Amino acid sequence: CRACAGQAGPLRTCERYRVRRRPFGIPGAEDEAFLQRVMPGRVLSGEEEVKPFNVDWLKSVRGCSQLVVKPQTTAEVSQVLRYCHERNLAVTPQGGNTGLVGGSVPVFDEIILSTALMNRIISFDKVSGILVCQAGCVLERLNEYVEEQGFIMPLDLGAKGSCHIGGNVATNAGGLRLLRYGSLRGTVLGLEVVLADGSVLDCLASLRKDNTGYDLKQLFIGSEGTLGVITAVSILCPQKPKAVNVAFLGCQSFTKVLETFTTCRAMLGEILSAYEFMDEKCMELVERHLKLSSPVTGSSPFYVLIETSGSNSTHDEEKLNNFLEQATASGLVTNGTVATDDKKIKASHLRERITEALTHDGYVYKYDISLPVGKLYDLVTDMRARLGQSAKNVVGYGHLGDGNLHLNITADSYSQSLLEAIEPFVYEWTARCSGSISAEHGLGFKKRHFIQYSKPSEAVALMQRFKAMLDPKGILNPYKTLPESS
Amino acid sequence: CRACAGQAGPLRTCERYRVRRRPFGIPGAEDEAFLQRVMPGRVLSGEEEVKPFNVDWLKSVRGCSQLVVKPQTTAEVSQVLRYCHERNLAVTPQGGNTGLVGGSVPVFDEIILSTALMNRIISFDKVSGILVCQAGCVLERLNEYVEEQGFIMPLDLGAKGSCHIGGNVATNAGGLRLLRYGSLRGTVLGLEVVLADGSVLDCLASLRKDNTGYDLKQLFIGSEGTLGVITAVSILCPQKPKAVNVAFLGCQSFTKVLETFTTCRAMLGEILSAYEFMDEKCMELVERHLKLSSPVTGSSPFYVLIETSGSNSTHDEEKLNNFLEQATASGLVTNGTVATDDKKIKASHLRERITEALTHDGYVYKYDISLPVGKLYDLVTDMRARLGQSAKNVVGYGHLGDGNLHLNITADSYSQSLLEAIEPFVYEWTARCSGSISAEHGLGFKKRHFIQYSKPSEAVALMQRFKAMLDPKGILNPYKTLPESS
Repeated sequence: CRACAGQAGPLRTCERYRVRRRPFGIPGAEDEAFLQRVMPGRVLSGEEEVKPFNVDWLKSVRGCSQLVVKPQTTAEVSQVLRYCHERNLAVTPQGGNTGLVGGSVPVFDEIILSTALMNRIISFDKVSGILVCQAGCVLERLNEYVEEQGFIMPLDLGAKGSCHIGGNVATNAGGLRLLRYGSLRGTVLGLEVVLADGSVLDCLASLRKDNTGYDLKQLFIGSEGTLGVITAVSILCPQKPKAVNVAFLGCQSFTKVLETFTTCRAMLGEILSAYEFMDEKCMELVERHLKLSSPVTGSSPFYVLIETSGSNSTHDEEKLNNFLEQATASGLVTNGTVATDDKKIKASHLRERITEALTHDGYVYKYDISLPVGKLYDLVTDMRARLGQSAKNVVGYGHLGDGNLHLNITADSYSQSLLEAIEPFVYEWTARCSGSISAEHGLGFKKRHFIQYSKPSEAVALMQRFKAMLDPKGILNPYKTLPESS
Repeated sequence: CRACAGQAGPLRTCERYRVRRRPFGIPGAEDEAFLQRVMPGRVLSGEEEVKPFNVDWLKSVRGCSQLVVKPQTTAEVSQVLRYCHERNLAVTPQGGNTGLVGGSVPVFDEIILSTALMNRIISFDKVSGILVCQAGCVLERLNEYVEEQGFIMPLDLGAKGSCHIGGNVATNAGGLRLLRYGSLRGTVLGLEVVLADGSVLDCLASLRKDNTGYDLKQLFIGSEGTLGVITAVSILCPQKPKAVNVAFLGCQSFTKVLETFTTCRAMLGEILSAYEFMDEKCMELVERHLKLSSPVTGSSPFYVLIETSGSNSTHDEEKLNNFLEQATASGLVTNGTVATDDKKIKASHLRERITEALTHDGYVYKYDISLPVGKLYDLVTDMRARLGQSAKNVVGYGHLGDGNLHLNITADSYSQSLLEAIEPFVYEWTARCSGSISAEHGLGFKKRHFIQYSKPSEAVALMQRFKAMLDPKGILNPYKTLPESS
């Protein structure tokens, strides 16, 4: 294909994924000139300038776009889309480009619409905790901003230093605080979205309750930029907890990890804010590749990280100590540490940096699976047995409290035969347990053909009808989320 | 209109609301015979039998359907809809018929599809707290069922003894626990829905996280039966709190009600589970019409009901006492009582029974408004001043923690001139504050023409396109939620 002529090397997206360019227009000098007039100085077209926007964070897929636009306002986004819609030019919206499924980079020569300059906070209400901001605000910056006023963002994830709130919403990001504050489907109160034809849909309400007609914004949450470009977000921030405690514990079996969860949920109740687990392989990789040391002495097959957030430090510590006494006395946990401020940071960083440690271990096959909690680790055990020596490491960690497993398999380099040993086995295994083949990462470019393992064909067909209705020319983030309609 | 020939009296729906019957087929003997074959003995057609299904709970609107069907299974619902779709027969889905906007009763001769016999619990997972059940289960029965296993339903409302969970989801019911457990958009994990043409959409997942494609179920949550008939629900139940406390307090001004809220939110933090307010007029009506007595001695212009739910009664009481001491010392509250078990029941019943007390006061004009918290009571004051002697009572109460005001105006009987003094004033007032003209009650039949006060015309047009796509003949709950497309 023409758009691919310049590509080379292991990342050639269209070859490995066998996707054919659809007959969109090919962006040319005239288009660049138009966009420059709309956003003077904010259109990138030099190869070096555009390069970082073409490759995903994992360096697993690469497009060959030659144009990046950086609008600052909703009106500019609207102008870009109206123009592209008329000219049949494809557009890939991009936030912080921290996605893990190739959803935010182009596949061919789609124009990249970066939200990097849409980083204005529009309003914050200190009584209600409702924040309204542009889509390109970086999550960590927002968290710092609302923290100063006694609130926190309702989501937290490893990529917080780079990811944009618009991208978080577009991918329905989960993360560490979901257990406590729920999903974005509850905390996002309003959205402003520019549709494929450039029309602006203003659903930017700042109300906790609004039952006037269908909740259109929900369709855009998790649609990965395929139905519209999110330009602004209204989101409910919880109060900043006065006390945060972290315990890092070792468990001798996954059964004990589960029992520890049930026990701590009962004893910590409303102050439990995260229950994460990792296996010893994860710990080894973090120690080896990042030179971090385990917060606990002695090794265990499993580790759990428990976080509490509450309004009264004395009460919280009492609850946590009661729980720890019982968990230790009943042999659920064998070693562990409760965080002082310093260790707390270390322990939580360690959990957050597993993804990074894995990238140092070689090529990574990443799976983000929802399963009934009791079966969560069986998939890791089965996969390890199945792959034997052909994989370097098979590790499992994740948000146990939400039934969310991150299964990662590393190898020295990419191998088609290893991939074929993993897939579709991993998806079939998940489907048998009525799990989800993408709990929080989305489908993007890399997983879209596996949607049928988690959704019946009637549902996929209906999604395709929504796509066709909202974006009849299919210009918005093509080749993503859904398989081509048959 | 022919369908209306048998109607008489003040409830004549189509006259007061000036709606014209659309050219659906007229259900006849042949249709009844077919439905009887599908559901032997579960088709009602006698006038007396059908009557209660034709009138809403408030007795404010009345349809003239002559057929009620009571399916027990999804397959039966599918058969009914496939048949009605082919014959162009309109259908009104009905749960517990406890709605307040005329959404669940027919307008003309629509066939009523009652979920009353779809009351089977399908599964309950004690580890995750995920309940799967048919749509016709009564909320209170479900709550009793999960309570036995250490959980509670994530929503609670006055109508719990009659309302169906399917109706709760179809109307996106809010209620008393929303402040703590969030909206149904977060707690509903999956739905099974029968579409207008009888096809079954199975999105009945039991996973906390699932980002595989668009979240179709969200479109049906709050669609009031206009896009599909919900037949089964998967919902996440929170753990049953070990300790519940209720405080009932008097405040001398609405400003103090607000300050009390901010103070208690900070001091009670994660255990605050409800913050309700009512004005002294509400108290008077409850005392007069229901013979309930105020839980506090002495009268105040405002009362607040604070509920805490937590996992440790000692900690919870300590937090509550600290808060009460401070609130009293600083003059925020002047009188009050903390609930013993007995009083607790009384106090919360009193709040729940305001709606009932109002119905004894005469004809009730009901408004369910979302507003920025600070302006919540200004609407009541302004309305009271505007209406003067022409109204019997103008009262305000509601879920202050969610910014949700229930504004109710009573008069000895229905009067068009009083209605015209209230509307569109109340909607214009709300729109000026970017509020919602229906926070939790929905639009149904009575409010659909006011949607533009809370949603821009582009959003309404898009909703109409979704309706046309999913129900091209418009047979599902016609004349509801959306204005006719122009």
